[in-house]
Amino acid sequence: MKMSREKALEYVRPALKTSRYEHTVRVTDQAVELAERFQADVNKAELAAAFHDYAKYKPLELMERWIESDRRLPKDLLDYHHELWHGPVGALMLEQEVGLTDAEVISAISCHTTGKKHMSMLDKIVFLADYIEPGREFPGVDQVREKAVENLDEACALALKNTIIFLIGKERTVYPDTFHAYNDLI
Amino acid sequence: MKMSREKALEYVRPALKTSRYEHTVRVTDQAVELAERFQADVNKAELAAAFHDYAKYKPLELMERWIESDRRLPKDLLDYHHELWHGPVGALMLEQEVGLTDAEVISAISCHTTGKKHMSMLDKIVFLADYIEPGREFPGVDQVREKAVENLDEACALALKNTIIFLIGKERTVYPDTFHAYNDLI
Repeated sequence: MKMSREKALEYVRPALKTSRYEHTVRVTDQAVELAERFQADVNKAELAAAFHDYAKYKPLELMERWIESDRRLPKDLLDYHHELWHGPVGALMLEQEVGLTDAEVISAISCHTTGKKHMSMLDKIVFLADYIEPGREFPGVDQVREKAVENLDEACALALKNTIIFLIGKERTVYPDTFHAYNDLI
Repeated sequence: MKMSREKALEYVRPALKTSRYEHTVRVTDQAVELAERFQADVNKAELAAAFHDYAKYKPLELMERWIESDRRLPKDLLDYHHELWHGPVGALMLEQEVGLTDAEVISAISCHTTGKKHMSMLDKIVFLADYIEPGREFPGVDQVREKAVENLDEACALALKNTIIFLIGKERTVYPDTFHAYNDLI
């Protein structure tokens, strides 16, 4: 499926709060920049980034039902923070509601919050774009931005490292895919 | 199998360097203290602690062969630091070389370095005793000692947290069982 940036953002806009929509536009620009830099498919990066938070404000009960009933979704998501659900659930909702079927785009949307083992270049670009878009301000983000100029894997590894240290510092659980992504890239 | 502390240490002594043997004796005392405190099986705790580092100085090639050939051992151990091998491999060597067969003792020896999901009380005691024995001096160990006075789970969670932060800070991989143990206890 070939879809323009405008069309994608048109689908996404009514599903998000204004501030989240603006974040989405910045992630989309960032993903395009990274895709050009690392010679990935620019249109796919744009599309995946535009749609990455599509399910962010879907009711939790609805997402819970999707996780329980769609066997492509790992059940253990229910044991972890609901903040992690909108990626994998959103990817499948987009398939159904928007007709998005490109497996690479679906994968990048699905793992944009947690990462996963053996991330593709597109997965890494969307994950990283979401982490470093210019609106983000948290400790360590500038070092990740610097790494992202030259090395996609090192930038992702550093973002994953920061994320894990942040979560563990707050005594929060860490979804296994995040550890697998970290171990894989380090 | 019922075996005295003396008998166990007699088996272990020739397998270790002096400093490692002295560490083993301290871990054994510490494990007994924890077992008494938390009403676990004192003899099993003593035995598991006495034998926990049995394979510490076995040749890497030998441990590698065990991992490759014994289907009870997870093959992914080979992808991680060899420092993690002596627990799981040692547990099986002890079965063969010493006739140690108690499943709880074997389990505690096996996971003493990494932890694992759903640790038993004995697993936690040996893991923790190895971490806090009086010879240990590293940042954070005193807080774990304090927790260990009252709450076994919280003490283990803190030790796991420290371990993960230490490893990630050094950009080293973290064996999945360690993450599972952390997520499980937090």
